Amino acid sequence: MLSKINITEAFSKILDLEHPYVVADVNEFQVKFSKLKGEFVWHSHEDEDELFLVVKGQLKMKLRDGEVLVNEGEMICVPHGVEHCPESEEEAHVILFERATTVNTGDAVSDKTRAAGRL
Amino acid sequence: MLSKINITEAFSKILDLEHPYVVADVNEFQVKFSKLKGEFVWHSHEDEDELFLVVKGQLKMKLRDGEVLVNEGEMICVPHGVEHCPESEEEAHVILFERATTVNTGDAVSDKTRAAGRL
Repeated sequence: MLSKINITEAFSKILDLEHPYVVADVNEFQVKFSKLKGEFVWHSHEDEDELFLVVKGQLKMKLRDGEVLVNEGEMICVPHGVEHCPESEEEAHVILFERATTVNTGDAVSDKTRAAGRL
Repeated sequence: MLSKINITEAFSKILDLEHPYVVADVNEFQVKFSKLKGEFVWHSHEDEDELFLVVKGQLKMKLRDGEVLVNEGEMICVPHGVEHCPESEEEAHVILFERATTVNTGDAVSDKTRAAGRL
């Protein structure tokens, strides 16, 4: 029997920041949950688009030509090749929908680079 | 400049039931919004997994071995090959993550089969 995922419960199991956790595999894509706070790192993904859905808090998506404030209940898709840097003053809970191969820091390997965990 | 999608606003633009609307392309995948009410149709997708995220209402995901009640703030991934039939007594607002090629009724072509629209 299939099981469902409760978003709030799943986020409550995440104890660290800036670390994506896979909650579902959808063919070659994955749904990942991550808690973000502070400034992330400027990066892009050569081939991979990346969708961010904010379920709690607010994410400031900084782009080279401006920034987009993504509030709770909003989403933004960052196309491949577009440099971006997520930032949030308060802890934000973010659902990511992207290829399983996508690395959180894209082309910018740094101390923030994390292999995705599993919830 | 990239634009964001407000989930509530986007759903308010959908005027018909059981019709998926593409709101974002994420590589070869899409995010689709759909309003569901009543019993859909039993079907499966030969190769395509399908993720359902309920943002309003409740979805009863009927499976051959039981059913899963998916409430607001919950999601379920139905793997390819698994027969399923979504049902909801009241209107439910559902976000779908799936391949762009996925047809709403899968292998069960019927009067409920719809090409996805665009919001």
